[in-house]
Amino acid sequence: MLSELLRTTRAHSLALAAPLSDEDAQLQSMPDASPAKWHLAHTTWFFETLVLTPFLSGYRVFDERWARLFNSYYESLGPRHARPQRGLLSRPSLAEVKAYRAHVDAALADLLPVAPPEAEALIELGCHHEQQHQELLLTDILHAFSCNPLLPAYRDATAAPVLPPPQAWLAHGGGIIEVGHAGAGFAFDNEGPRHAVLLAPFEISNRLVTCGEYADFIDAGGYREPLLWLSDGWALVQAQGWQRPLYWLDDGRVFGLHGAQPLDPQAPVTQLSFYEACAYAEWAGARLPTEFEWEAACALQGFAQVDDQGWQWTRSSYAPYPGFKPAAGAVGEYNGKFMVGQQVLRGGSLATPSGHARPSYRNFFPPAARWQFSGLRLAR
Amino acid sequence: MLSELLRTTRAHSLALAAPLSDEDAQLQSMPDASPAKWHLAHTTWFFETLVLTPFLSGYRVFDERWARLFNSYYESLGPRHARPQRGLLSRPSLAEVKAYRAHVDAALADLLPVAPPEAEALIELGCHHEQQHQELLLTDILHAFSCNPLLPAYRDATAAPVLPPPQAWLAHGGGIIEVGHAGAGFAFDNEGPRHAVLLAPFEISNRLVTCGEYADFIDAGGYREPLLWLSDGWALVQAQGWQRPLYWLDDGRVFGLHGAQPLDPQAPVTQLSFYEACAYAEWAGARLPTEFEWEAACALQGFAQVDDQGWQWTRSSYAPYPGFKPAAGAVGEYNGKFMVGQQVLRGGSLATPSGHARPSYRNFFPPAARWQFSGLRLAR
Amino acid sequence: MLSELLRTTRAHSLALAAPLSDEDAQLQSMPDASPAKWHLAHTTWFFETLVLTPFLSGYRVFDERWARLFNSYYESLGPRHARPQRGLLSRPSLAEVKAYRAHVDAALADLLPVAPPEAEALIELGCHHEQQHQELLLTDILHAFSCNPLLPAYRDATAAPVLPPPQAWLAHGGGIIEVGHAGAGFAFDNEGPRHAVLLAPFEISNRLVTCGEYADFIDAGGYREPLLWLSDGWALVQAQGWQRPLYWLDDGRVFGLHGAQPLDPQAPVTQLSFYEACAYAEWAGARLPTEFEWEAACALQGFAQVDDQGWQWTRSSYAPYPGFKPAAGAVGEYNGKFMVGQQVLRGGSLATPSGHARPSYRNFFPPAARWQFSGLRLAR
Amino acid sequence: MLSELLRTTRAHSLALAAPLSDEDAQLQSMPDASPAKWHLAHTTWFFETLVLTPFLSGYRVFDERWARLFNSYYESLGPRHARPQRGLLSRPSLAEVKAYRAHVDAALADLLPVAPPEAEALIELGCHHEQQHQELLLTDILHAFSCNPLLPAYRDATAAPVLPPPQAWLAHGGGIIEVGHAGAGFAFDNEGPRHAVLLAPFEISNRLVTCGEYADFIDAGGYREPLLWLSDGWALVQAQGWQRPLYWLDDGRVFGLHGAQPLDPQAPVTQLSFYEACAYAEWAGARLPTEFEWEAACALQGFAQVDDQGWQWTRSSYAPYPGFKPAAGAVGEYNGKFMVGQQVLRGGSLATPSGHARPSYRNFFPPAARWQFSGLRLAR
Repeated sequence: MLSELLRTTRAHSLALAAPLSDEDAQLQSMPDASPAKWHLAHTTWFFETLVLTPFLSGYRVFDERWARLFNSYYESLGPRHARPQRGLLSRPSLAEVKAYRAHVDAALADLLPVAPPEAEALIELGCHHEQQHQELLLTDILHAFSCNPLLPAYRDATAAPVLPPPQAWLAHGGGIIEVGHAGAGFAFDNEGPRHAVLLAPFEISNRLVTCGEYADFIDAGGYREPLLWLSDGWALVQAQGWQRPLYWLDDGRVFGLHGAQPLDPQAPVTQLSFYEACAYAEWAGARLPTEFEWEAACALQGFAQVDDQGWQWTRSSYAPYPGFKPAAGAVGEYNGKFMVGQQVLRGGSLATPSGHARPSYRNFFPPAARWQFSGLRLAR
Repeated sequence: MLSELLRTTRAHSLALAAPLSDEDAQLQSMPDASPAKWHLAHTTWFFETLVLTPFLSGYRVFDERWARLFNSYYESLGPRHARPQRGLLSRPSLAEVKAYRAHVDAALADLLPVAPPEAEALIELGCHHEQQHQELLLTDILHAFSCNPLLPAYRDATAAPVLPPPQAWLAHGGGIIEVGHAGAGFAFDNEGPRHAVLLAPFEISNRLVTCGEYADFIDAGGYREPLLWLSDGWALVQAQGWQRPLYWLDDGRVFGLHGAQPLDPQAPVTQLSFYEACAYAEWAGARLPTEFEWEAACALQGFAQVDDQGWQWTRSSYAPYPGFKPAAGAVGEYNGKFMVGQQVLRGGSLATPSGHARPSYRNFFPPAARWQFSGLRLAR
Repeated sequence: MLSELLRTTRAHSLALAAPLSDEDAQLQSMPDASPAKWHLAHTTWFFETLVLTPFLSGYRVFDERWARLFNSYYESLGPRHARPQRGLLSRPSLAEVKAYRAHVDAALADLLPVAPPEAEALIELGCHHEQQHQELLLTDILHAFSCNPLLPAYRDATAAPVLPPPQAWLAHGGGIIEVGHAGAGFAFDNEGPRHAVLLAPFEISNRLVTCGEYADFIDAGGYREPLLWLSDGWALVQAQGWQRPLYWLDDGRVFGLHGAQPLDPQAPVTQLSFYEACAYAEWAGARLPTEFEWEAACALQGFAQVDDQGWQWTRSSYAPYPGFKPAAGAVGEYNGKFMVGQQVLRGGSLATPSGHARPSYRNFFPPAARWQFSGLRLAR
Repeated sequence: MLSELLRTTRAHSLALAAPLSDEDAQLQSMPDASPAKWHLAHTTWFFETLVLTPFLSGYRVFDERWARLFNSYYESLGPRHARPQRGLLSRPSLAEVKAYRAHVDAALADLLPVAPPEAEALIELGCHHEQQHQELLLTDILHAFSCNPLLPAYRDATAAPVLPPPQAWLAHGGGIIEVGHAGAGFAFDNEGPRHAVLLAPFEISNRLVTCGEYADFIDAGGYREPLLWLSDGWALVQAQGWQRPLYWLDDGRVFGLHGAQPLDPQAPVTQLSFYEACAYAEWAGARLPTEFEWEAACALQGFAQVDDQGWQWTRSSYAPYPGFKPAAGAVGEYNGKFMVGQQVLRGGSLATPSGHARPSYRNFFPPAARWQFSGLRLAR
């Protein structure tokens, strides 16, 4: 089962990169994004460094010089190539990175039958880590393509969009609720320890805010009314001239993985910053749910568009749960050191790999981030 | 009683400014700080605009042109002079600003006997608002003086420092706790609504971390070990070359309101950023309390150095309480629009006006802020 | 005669500062400008450091700690307070700086009767140096006042403006011309060595471009037509939204030493950057003169508005004359190290102290500088 | 002959790109540099836009959407893709750009036999324009490779370096000299009008400063002595931590087109900024020649390393020659609008295409530019 997870995860990354040319896979359009080639290599480095080197006897590192290229942020694992310069790594080539993947995959296949439990846990972590990068691979290439006046499409549109249900408020009675990961399945360290929180009664929307609803907010002057905005958000509206979501074009179309398409008023609005989500909620006479309200609402009948449309900004900042302790060693840097200055998003998006998200899953981004599939669900 | 609060508050601002020359009162050493003269004028503008103009019949605005100079951030009250340029307002002079204060004080004295309850509430708010600026006046002039190689002293040292109690852990049993402001006294809107939270059992230190303890952290290499730091904090350590608290000098002395003085190992360490507070706690095998743990701990026997030494960073980000609604009108901008990207500090400092702080009081600053009297109290 | 120069120069600085309050004298509105108080102190430090300390036996430095405050840029004379932070020096006070001036003036009076020729030369240099700062004192306070929405006037308008002569082209036959300082009078090192240059015949305007003429350029769309501009200039027009000269207000008035006044179409346009001067000249079908054409034109009959209205941008970059060698010692840093990236201005302005300018005088500023009394005279 | 120039020029660009992978050709390592693919496309767009569209009847533009991608800076030719984002154009692919080149080459072949003189002149300009980009293609890819920790080599070292002649001073008697382009051959507009200048007698070195000599300057503390530097240069030394030329590595090797190689003390030092060149000259007791001294020295016996080793910074800023008028139309933007803020370099480098340089040739870069093959020749 672990071998199946590993196999499908590794294969899925290559499948996601398949539509990309060598040149596409090289693109880095901003410091926060990374090239597709880098995602393919970094996830492989993760297995090599944390699993193969310590656990596979006789393992030969593919190229000693690459560690500094493909370490993302692990201070405990040595120096790193500067993040904003990942797009300058034309060497190694995409073909060499694919050879690296094959080398590591073969070694993992050798290790799997004899892997101790600790190695198995790290392989499982490596798979979930790679799934996270699969989503970033898509959001990052989408941002890069959005910077090209030719507006290339990552893939052709396939199926007709699914209609959302009519909007409805779902009521939750509050009370003491257990939150955080439970059970035997995999979870990231930031999803625990499971603990109890006390919630006041609340209502939450059954679905996400749509593009049509968001267009009404724009038409009503939402981007011109400072009193709707958090102070930092309004400063960005003015400094950067925000007038609509990041990928809404001047001509009324919306840019996405299928290229520029007519705005679909029924589709969930995504690529919103936390500030835009809050301003919309204020305008709509509602608010964002907290992350615990969101998690509690998962149990409500009719709670739709949970994790396959867009991540949902919550009013909760990203902080450690009571009793949270980072793991020992390099893996301890995984989540804990980012626990300030970011907001939690819950759910999942159309770019999230199947099976990756959970009700206890905590995604997080700075409030100004606009290039993710991030939308909102109202509460009140 | 309101008249007494008003009288003493207004007098205290002038007393704080008394040691400052006209030139001192002009200083603005960074965009986040304001000149003492500006604090004196802005707090006066607050009364003029929110109290006198709407409620005192026949009130004559002192100078129509000053509204744009002394409006801080109220979008609903018209255009504002750019914040980073407050230090360029040599006109009006300090003498003119004092005349402005006298003019407004006289009008407030006229209004008080006939003020309707709504005006009384705004006068009370204006007094507490002015007290906030009294603390900022001190932290801001201290920062400005720290930029002068002559290192001027704001005032002479007066009394011997009080010795802290020996460190001890106070245990709290957790449970459902009511937090937020209760009772009839004044509180800011962000202290409510009062509501219940569920706490796990915890321990909290009876006193603040001292300069001597913090010096041990430095000596142990605390500023050189990335694994102790939140990621954003470590980036600042490197980019800005942090090696010690902001006002600790190369020569072992510490700069403060009394000028440069020998480091007092028993004194609480202050002028820390949230990042430094977290790194220290990590190094000490402890953590910061949440704001609700802090508030619950106020009831514990032996909980010392509550609000007269230094503000205490908490692990809580600044967010609205359940059910929080900003007030209608300009006053609604008072707190709500800052509720993202900041951390809550609890307690009070040696620069906090007497009577200003409360157990439910929520101070807040961005995690990188280092120029406040901000220290830490450990929890575990 | 040197004593008379010294006396009048020192007195003139105080006279220029007389209209300023302590607060005004503290203002620094941008890194390129300095507070009036700083100008008063720096020019005094120059005498103290370069004249009194080496040449007056038994001279007592006024305050040892001030050297780092009032050294401008002399690497060979020790560390300096950061230039952008000059406005943060509320201490020493203006009164203390005036006492410093009196202390140094008295010592200079002691030295003068016994000064060796080398000291006399440095005193003369110190006077001309102080005259340069007298002009900067005015341009810097004007910039600071321009940042105050109250638009204070430095002084009242006194006399009626003088009408310029009708525009006429003056012809020069070119040929081999001697340029650079000649004779026994004082000159800065950058005005020599005197040398011959070869000029082609040219024509030059008898007077400066007027505000009325410049208004025509604006009305004709001059700030919207990229082909009129140097590439770097056009980048600034777009990045900073330039639409008119720096001190031309939205309401049609022009800000100056007398406050905001109606635009005088006959007055020379000033506060122009080199880029604006070039764009105007291009639009007018003319060009800027070189610095040597300008110097040669001084001998032409009818060459008006030479040095009492506005500095005149030339097409010459600031470079050493053939054979130029900086003086030995600290004085060698006076001019030579700035000889790149700046354009030469010739003439003088209404803010230039009487007797300071000469035909060989080379003023220089970066091409983007807009806060000087800098205009243009056409050539073709 | 024009057809031969066109054929060889177009072929040479492809030959230069041949060692580059699709990914290499995509790299843009800083805003001042461009991807190799972009150079290939831009030079082609130049022919298409300025030659084919106006002069070849029935010419079909290859792709209408590409004009905005490959226009460099011609304001008169429509909007442009932002320069710092050229590296984000993964589409069109390198293969598509090569097809574009073939399309345009075929059309130029059709036009050549029937081209009117005006078109012939523009084709000739297009060839020399493309040769300029051939040098930039090399300097830009070299910079990009220098940012990759793997330090890839653009090509293998081929021949042994040629030894420079022993250093000697060549004397020139000065006098009235004609400078600027003469004769019937091609020259850029900035090389004229030819005119006379007056030079004082001077001496100039027969060869460039070597790496060995420059290493002595470093060993003598050249990068630590402010008095050797122009003020702006010293500011960069401090702000950016300059300690040696841009491509001199920590380990004593030098990075270049052949990868990292041992320092060759006899080779000319290149990749210097103007500031470093000036500081070296100051340290060596000499100076940089003016551009006219350099041009006059070309006639001297023994003047070696003229145009095949490294461009040579001169003390002359880039300014129009007397009587210079930009050409009408888009071509007029070619040179004139950059005539401020840059220094002239004379000569040519090992990256300059054969036959491109001339004694009257004026290359120019900002004084801080360090990524060109730019060195120095001393004068005195």
